[in-house]
Amino acid sequence: MAKVTLITGGQRSGKSRYAQKLAEENSANPVYLATARKWDAEFEARIERHKADRGEKWRTIELERFSGIVDFSGEVVVMDCVTLWLNNIFFDNQFNVEISLMQAKEEWEKFTKSSFKLIVVSNELGMGVIPENKEARQFADLQGWVNQFIASQADEVILMVSGIPLKVK
Amino acid sequence: MAKVTLITGGQRSGKSRYAQKLAEENSANPVYLATARKWDAEFEARIERHKADRGEKWRTIELERFSGIVDFSGEVVVMDCVTLWLNNIFFDNQFNVEISLMQAKEEWEKFTKSSFKLIVVSNELGMGVIPENKEARQFADLQGWVNQFIASQADEVILMVSGIPLKVK
Amino acid sequence: MAKVTLITGGQRSGKSRYAQKLAEENSANPVYLATARKWDAEFEARIERHKADRGEKWRTIELERFSGIVDFSGEVVVMDCVTLWLNNIFFDNQFNVEISLMQAKEEWEKFTKSSFKLIVVSNELGMGVIPENKEARQFADLQGWVNQFIASQADEVILMVSGIPLKVK
Repeated sequence: MAKVTLITGGQRSGKSRYAQKLAEENSANPVYLATARKWDAEFEARIERHKADRGEKWRTIELERFSGIVDFSGEVVVMDCVTLWLNNIFFDNQFNVEISLMQAKEEWEKFTKSSFKLIVVSNELGMGVIPENKEARQFADLQGWVNQFIASQADEVILMVSGIPLKVK
Repeated sequence: MAKVTLITGGQRSGKSRYAQKLAEENSANPVYLATARKWDAEFEARIERHKADRGEKWRTIELERFSGIVDFSGEVVVMDCVTLWLNNIFFDNQFNVEISLMQAKEEWEKFTKSSFKLIVVSNELGMGVIPENKEARQFADLQGWVNQFIASQADEVILMVSGIPLKVK
Repeated sequence: MAKVTLITGGQRSGKSRYAQKLAEENSANPVYLATARKWDAEFEARIERHKADRGEKWRTIELERFSGIVDFSGEVVVMDCVTLWLNNIFFDNQFNVEISLMQAKEEWEKFTKSSFKLIVVSNELGMGVIPENKEARQFADLQGWVNQFIASQADEVILMVSGIPLKVK
């Protein structure tokens, strides 16, 4: 089973940068697992900016869902991020939160089956005013439940605050 | 006076589950104090799901406001949650934040007068973008002020992050 | 260079009060640096309420931007707050986030050049659901990046949770 470090926090709290720093301390050739679907120009620009920020030593894999089996044995992997992956699942299931949660747990168990070091980036979405939009509210529910699920299995949980890591577990 | 543990955190961060676990460690027959008003079908479904999640050992009391005196001496009580209770007060006062704050403090003092163990669940609503909607913004103010008020009197304050308790006080 | 304590947290989490308490412990005549532009009646009322809350020992300076040089050598200064200052920069640059970020860093370096104790209040805006409004989303980006920038230079970073300070750095 994968050894998991969960890095969570708000928008622009330095999660990705910290995850990459951790990975580089643990491997000369880490894997960057990008879960973003290219929805629009803004997303595509973000993906390209992130790619440019990483050095040549990184191997990038783009994976929107974990439908098949990928063996990461022995690797150091940054998954960036849980939110974008859940977004794909939620969209593919026409915003059904129960089915999405079930599929997310199944995919996560497949994904973390092999023995590797996984540094996973997620988001805190639930500390603002509850959104009026029903899908947004349900997505925040889904995100919260999946964060709990991942954190319960993680060896380490870190909350980023203004770029500073705060150890939670 | 009640001995208070405040458990705060975001939406779906595991606050209620942790509060119930704490209560069960401290009592064979804890009291669950539900403050939700049954506004709509979504709320009613949540209330029913929460009831089903708790075991038979729990005694449930539904109380939307603390207008009268209830003596909880010697009990272990989970109040779930501050936000729903404040919601009732805010609504009953036509969204007047000053009057709501004053009434909340008065009711809280009545509620915590007797000698019992109180585990109280609240919400972080203020760490997102300030909402454009005036009532939402004022409710977040009210929530923040009441959280400070309760935390200042609490023996323990815990922030839930992805289901993991982080001791703040 | 200024010795910086960053106090961040959500809306109504007790940041300003804690900053002022810290300043009063460190100086008999602290400086209150107010960055709010008087946008509307609600803002003006907040500014006046804050002024009334502070005692006579405080010297208040209103400064919307750090265009010129101000020498605070030897003083204890509370800057309240980063968000309102960034708001001014963002507005003055027609919501251009890149230019705003650049100007914010330049102004910050001018501001913190002299040798004084700076207690700076900021906001967590990024832990809620990502806003649909583009300007709001970009402002939250700007706020997050500037919080990281300030925190990286700070000696101390504190997250306020329900009025309780949690040391992050």
